[in-house]
Amino acid sequence: MQFKLTSEFLDILKENINTKNSDQTYDLIKDLHPADIAEILGELTSEEATFLYLLLDGEKAADVLTAMEDDDREHLLNRLSTDELARHITDNLDSDDAADMLMELPEAKQDEILNKISNTEQASDIVDLLGYDENSAGGLMAKELIKVNENWDMMKCIREMRKQAEIVDELYYVYVVDDDNFLKGTVSLKRLIISRSNAKIKNILNADVISVRTDTKSDEVANIMEKYDLVSLPVVDQIGRLVGRITIDDVVDVIKEEAEKDYQLISGITVDIEPRDNALMHTRARLPWLLIGLFGGILGAQVISLFEENLKINPSIALFFPLIAAMGGNVGVQSSSIVVQGIAANIIDLQSMSKKLLKEMLVALFNGSILSVLIFCYNLIFTDSFVLTITVSVALLTVIMFASIFGTFVPLVLHRFKIDPALATGPFITTVNDVMGIFIYLGIGRLFYSILQM
Amino acid sequence: MQFKLTSEFLDILKENINTKNSDQTYDLIKDLHPADIAEILGELTSEEATFLYLLLDGEKAADVLTAMEDDDREHLLNRLSTDELARHITDNLDSDDAADMLMELPEAKQDEILNKISNTEQASDIVDLLGYDENSAGGLMAKELIKVNENWDMMKCIREMRKQAEIVDELYYVYVVDDDNFLKGTVSLKRLIISRSNAKIKNILNADVISVRTDTKSDEVANIMEKYDLVSLPVVDQIGRLVGRITIDDVVDVIKEEAEKDYQLISGITVDIEPRDNALMHTRARLPWLLIGLFGGILGAQVISLFEENLKINPSIALFFPLIAAMGGNVGVQSSSIVVQGIAANIIDLQSMSKKLLKEMLVALFNGSILSVLIFCYNLIFTDSFVLTITVSVALLTVIMFASIFGTFVPLVLHRFKIDPALATGPFITTVNDVMGIFIYLGIGRLFYSILQM
Repeated sequence: MQFKLTSEFLDILKENINTKNSDQTYDLIKDLHPADIAEILGELTSEEATFLYLLLDGEKAADVLTAMEDDDREHLLNRLSTDELARHITDNLDSDDAADMLMELPEAKQDEILNKISNTEQASDIVDLLGYDENSAGGLMAKELIKVNENWDMMKCIREMRKQAEIVDELYYVYVVDDDNFLKGTVSLKRLIISRSNAKIKNILNADVISVRTDTKSDEVANIMEKYDLVSLPVVDQIGRLVGRITIDDVVDVIKEEAEKDYQLISGITVDIEPRDNALMHTRARLPWLLIGLFGGILGAQVISLFEENLKINPSIALFFPLIAAMGGNVGVQSSSIVVQGIAANIIDLQSMSKKLLKEMLVALFNGSILSVLIFCYNLIFTDSFVLTITVSVALLTVIMFASIFGTFVPLVLHRFKIDPALATGPFITTVNDVMGIFIYLGIGRLFYSILQM
Repeated sequence: MQFKLTSEFLDILKENINTKNSDQTYDLIKDLHPADIAEILGELTSEEATFLYLLLDGEKAADVLTAMEDDDREHLLNRLSTDELARHITDNLDSDDAADMLMELPEAKQDEILNKISNTEQASDIVDLLGYDENSAGGLMAKELIKVNENWDMMKCIREMRKQAEIVDELYYVYVVDDDNFLKGTVSLKRLIISRSNAKIKNILNADVISVRTDTKSDEVANIMEKYDLVSLPVVDQIGRLVGRITIDDVVDVIKEEAEKDYQLISGITVDIEPRDNALMHTRARLPWLLIGLFGGILGAQVISLFEENLKINPSIALFFPLIAAMGGNVGVQSSSIVVQGIAANIIDLQSMSKKLLKEMLVALFNGSILSVLIFCYNLIFTDSFVLTITVSVALLTVIMFASIFGTFVPLVLHRFKIDPALATGPFITTVNDVMGIFIYLGIGRLFYSILQM
């Protein structure tokens, strides 16, 4: 029942496409779900994808377009005629999907398509949606929804819904408004089905409805839908009039994207890329952080050269450079990632910053002490120099303390200044802690060597 | 309309709880959404939480329990009597929430509660659910669903649905089965509302229904629901009989948890912790990877001591230890995270392993060359020793190549052996690449110094 894309299937499909064998190509994909076809299109070149796409009939083609990944779709859209796109939009697309799609096109092409949409109401809905910030509730919502007046009774309500239901794909709630279109509540479909037909909408509605404004940020929308377990969320304007609704499937995408973005930042990847993107795109996505790493390494070299005299006298101090640098980096990444996760989960604001730093210092003190004692024991046994033994342990504890405070502090400060705290995870924290770690280590070393040996 | 938890609110609430002021405490929370109360409970000590919880009436109390975080709930559950819990379950909980809850209790207490549930059918549903693996479709599903027989007409269907709807919280689809309970299709509520009342279910059902088996893994369930934009997914047994359904809100939790787990692994945190957990829990969650880092650092020291003679003659080679170690670590983390994300998104299997490694090598070659040239220029200007200049550049390229191949290879191999590839991200990759990087650097250094200087 469920389709699994294999490289064998792809090979056969590509062969049929490349020999322009329409019938066989169509046979291969005609029974597949639009989401599966979208997945396949992502694996084809854009010529191949266009050939296959043009074999699909209207409704399926539109569903496939909606299900595609953004970059795959962009390539395909640019190969389709504006007439074709306008027809798709008129016949088969919800306003939010249509707006998402248009956003990927150059403005001239957008205008051309909008002017070709035969349904003016739909065109104006789409224009409205295009005006909202992509990362806001307005950018996520669809205008299509089923709304009923609070003064209607069930019978009228059902009659009206039958009319309206034509234009709505998914239907979970019916929104209730007053004569001025102010949102008054919702009626769940379950409620509609189990209520008697003479009931007034006013009397069966759930007035305790959670809504967001068009300018609510996407991640907040996601947090709200997740927290309150909602499948659909009404969107109102500044004064409370109903303008659209967001469904859970759009929010699942937001949740995934947020998580992926944070994950890529902590792993030092600056641009949104996917495994199948080509080598050049990967190079570009990874180079920026590596350049910062290189810069950090050069700084590290300069720090060490400040202490070159000490190093010449006691070259064995270099033995523990990797240890000190690695521990600083690891601790910093741990601390910063905890902060970033807390901020993402919206649970970070309850404690004051000083309290958070205090706890972080306590954790660092525990871990640092344990690790310092362990390396102390190791060095006592395997290292000849007692000064080095002491230096490594004291420096390790200090570096861990520093790295954890720094790793906590920086993302918190970024967050306070409304900058994405995830920028301070991964390579940034590692690089700074590397350099600072070496500096602390060599500084402590110089001090101890001068006190204990001279 | 929307509640925002502040520390001021918490302080007032705690004061009222600690002075055992039931009325005022209740007044503070009585109008809040269960999800908000659940959030508040998470910020209280377990005595405080119990006091507050016992003020809630049955249905709200059950909703709060369902909305709570697992660990918060576990503490609370252990303070409630088995009578209370049995009453909750009978009156207000879906089978899947009840099973999730019982799973958190010791077996003796589970049995006690199950025996106190007055509704035998419900008790047996829960026992069934407890038998499934937590990370499978069976563990995610609820038994409560609305099903109708394919031979009924719409009128009978609506009548039956009204009866069944009592026990179902959320209602998106009606499942259609034959006389032997085999899943035949679904009817969307939208369809029901817009169809004429004399239509036969058989004729309006959507037979092209996507379902999973009870033993389908949670992450696959999440991928399927996300890919096909489903809000509800029927679960069948090995031969196709309908046994339950999974709703999108449960799957959103799975998606979040998967993402958090991967994020914690890449940041070197081994146990699922939250920012508000205490310092000791944080220490325990972070120590394991730091120990591995320490061990790696010791290995690094031993590698360097192998080359101690060279270091004594050319101490300036130590200047670039941090650079080499950091670049190896960064590149390794980038490569491994790309693989992990690809595996999570289910798009990794289409290319052969050799193709993936080849592309990775190409990326490494691009980035490595750019970085090597840059550091070469830097060293030409700022470093006296040409041998060192050459050594650093050649070593950097080699280390980047090694780290990226290693970072790609290890998670792929883990995945092939059904081990979570995310284990190979973060500190593990960094540590290995640190040590190997230093080894490669010093090895190349020894070679070049012996060729070029002797």
